[in-house]
Amino acid sequence: MPAARPFVSLTTDFGAAYTAICAGVVYSIAPAATVLVLSDEVTPYAVAEGAMLLRQALPYLPPGVHVGIVDPGVGTPRLPLAIETGRGDLLVGPDNGLFVPAAEELGGVVRAHILEDRSYRLPSVSATFHGRDVFSPAAAHLALGVDVAELGPPAVPLPLDVAPPETGGRALTAAVLYVDRFGSVILNAGPGDLAEALGDLEYGAALVARVHGTGGPAAEPVVFAETFGSVAVGDPLLWVDSSGHLGLAVNQGSAAARFGLGRDGTVTIGLAD
Amino acid sequence: MPAARPFVSLTTDFGAAYTAICAGVVYSIAPAATVLVLSDEVTPYAVAEGAMLLRQALPYLPPGVHVGIVDPGVGTPRLPLAIETGRGDLLVGPDNGLFVPAAEELGGVVRAHILEDRSYRLPSVSATFHGRDVFSPAAAHLALGVDVAELGPPAVPLPLDVAPPETGGRALTAAVLYVDRFGSVILNAGPGDLAEALGDLEYGAALVARVHGTGGPAAEPVVFAETFGSVAVGDPLLWVDSSGHLGLAVNQGSAAARFGLGRDGTVTIGLAD
Amino acid sequence: MPAARPFVSLTTDFGAAYTAICAGVVYSIAPAATVLVLSDEVTPYAVAEGAMLLRQALPYLPPGVHVGIVDPGVGTPRLPLAIETGRGDLLVGPDNGLFVPAAEELGGVVRAHILEDRSYRLPSVSATFHGRDVFSPAAAHLALGVDVAELGPPAVPLPLDVAPPETGGRALTAAVLYVDRFGSVILNAGPGDLAEALGDLEYGAALVARVHGTGGPAAEPVVFAETFGSVAVGDPLLWVDSSGHLGLAVNQGSAAARFGLGRDGTVTIGLAD
Repeated sequence: MPAARPFVSLTTDFGAAYTAICAGVVYSIAPAATVLVLSDEVTPYAVAEGAMLLRQALPYLPPGVHVGIVDPGVGTPRLPLAIETGRGDLLVGPDNGLFVPAAEELGGVVRAHILEDRSYRLPSVSATFHGRDVFSPAAAHLALGVDVAELGPPAVPLPLDVAPPETGGRALTAAVLYVDRFGSVILNAGPGDLAEALGDLEYGAALVARVHGTGGPAAEPVVFAETFGSVAVGDPLLWVDSSGHLGLAVNQGSAAARFGLGRDGTVTIGLAD
Repeated sequence: MPAARPFVSLTTDFGAAYTAICAGVVYSIAPAATVLVLSDEVTPYAVAEGAMLLRQALPYLPPGVHVGIVDPGVGTPRLPLAIETGRGDLLVGPDNGLFVPAAEELGGVVRAHILEDRSYRLPSVSATFHGRDVFSPAAAHLALGVDVAELGPPAVPLPLDVAPPETGGRALTAAVLYVDRFGSVILNAGPGDLAEALGDLEYGAALVARVHGTGGPAAEPVVFAETFGSVAVGDPLLWVDSSGHLGLAVNQGSAAARFGLGRDGTVTIGLAD
Repeated sequence: MPAARPFVSLTTDFGAAYTAICAGVVYSIAPAATVLVLSDEVTPYAVAEGAMLLRQALPYLPPGVHVGIVDPGVGTPRLPLAIETGRGDLLVGPDNGLFVPAAEELGGVVRAHILEDRSYRLPSVSATFHGRDVFSPAAAHLALGVDVAELGPPAVPLPLDVAPPETGGRALTAAVLYVDRFGSVILNAGPGDLAEALGDLEYGAALVARVHGTGGPAAEPVVFAETFGSVAVGDPLLWVDSSGHLGLAVNQGSAAARFGLGRDGTVTIGLAD
């Protein structure tokens, strides 16, 4: 950077209009930028969901400036940050762990700096819309070629707080990371966790899923499958999604509805008797 | 093609984030492209709805590479395809008829080729996300000027399976193609079908609509009208939409709610007594 | 204008696909344009909501051609208009007041012209989709450098019809302008109106909000606060939003749900006893 047409992405829980205002701020400062809204519909305040999306998506986007704003702490003393990655990306957002999993996929954190210098903010900074007033202007200036160290003092990014999977008792217990648009439920566990809990499984293996708390069935059978099309329409499956996470799905249906699982849910998977 | 800024559109049932990942893949390969998301909210697996949207929309978009992914068959042996049209567009998606009605509007199918050559895919192809791994890379390479015949062997696109309207018994029976955001219900019939069933009608003619099955009224009066504003606020009308389909609407209201009609519905329209 | 890459924004109540068709029309005529969808999800026919969004957003977008279409009168004799602002923007949409508050923020109305010349429309104009057939082509031609006076005869824009706040009886009564995605309720009143009704208030002042009609609580306590983080999670606040409007919010929650307030609601705010 700066490229002839620097690339900027935006990921927020703001909805379309407020995110587009952020894009407008980027275009106002860096008119030649290509701006892509990766998502404006992260569940409000769901930092882990946003972090998983960024981890999954950013490797497929061009190296560039990536703004991520899922920020329950706006208006509090949490710090605004820019992280430079090994791949050369610049990740701009609140210092709440949102970008840490993505940075690991992009060559790791090379350096990080606090967005402190007021010359890279809008002239007037509101109390509640730092996406517009702080993060987007910083991103645009980075896209224009400003060095990240110009923005403020160095910092070490805070980690993302996510509960790890449990693999004891011949069962895998995993929390829901997010629910996609089709109602597929992505879990905070991978195929290695599954193998650790249940041993090596062949596709087609018969499993049971037990949803914790109320709202779901006591023990629902589910097939470990490579693809949705491996099971009949309407049947549930456990599969490995394209980012390497285990997920519960229903072929042409909604696993969230079938299992009564939402984004705060936990599920235990074991072998069928 | 290739133009200085080749044009690429994306139409999917993936939701915003997964569609934006596809855009990111296009930008990674073809950084100068202009990428427009035509829709990321086609009803999941609703191939006919996606096909009607593409038919309606693509004539208004610049000639370019248009990616369409509504793909109930992902993970099965259905073929990935690129279709060249008479207008010079390249239509990239699964071979399930999604693009066939649109191709007819764009000068017809000139040639079609299977997306077989692995050098135009991402290095690793997942089982479930061909939009990212197969279709978007192919589209980006086409946008860069790769000839469609380089992608793989020729093929004849499969047709879209849509039930035709029935015009017997002084009545027009038509299936719902899609329901738009305002709740207007677009039917798989045009003004010619209406005239065949009921004779030439003047605007203002009094009709009745009978919704099949349960959930709708027995026989609802509806006026054949040129514009929404031709009837009172809250009144239903039958009109010809901007793509030449008949539609049921309610002026400043929802015809889907009024008639109890969804995307799998069928309605019979006759003359009022 | 014309810049090398003229800037065009789109704000509509059409949903994604129909708005993207408008973008496609702009790209077809002005291929080098940067097109940003500010919103495609204005509440259908909610002119005041669209007007408030445009007023809030456009100052943060680059000077350019801004298309706004929230148009209950499509198909009636309401006029299509382009307004030139003091900042140099061109605001294109129906003459229903949608752009008047935004124009005030952009240096005022310099001149306005009716979109009458057919050479700046699509060859065929439908009865119901003027966004595609009239407004987007005009915007694209303006982006290419056509003078606004070329489009048709001059006109004076109609005002937006919004009820003003009432400040009598030691209370502020204000109508809801819009509800944002988080459920925060933005009111048609500012901090000056609040001071006029209740005197100068310090942050932390204890107030009560009374929602008119049914559906809300009789009198809900609410704190006048500078930021969401000033109150506990789940607690309500009255704050001044980033565009200078008073708003009711709940820290990490929905004020619309808490107060039973929608976009047609009215609320009276007074001092706690």
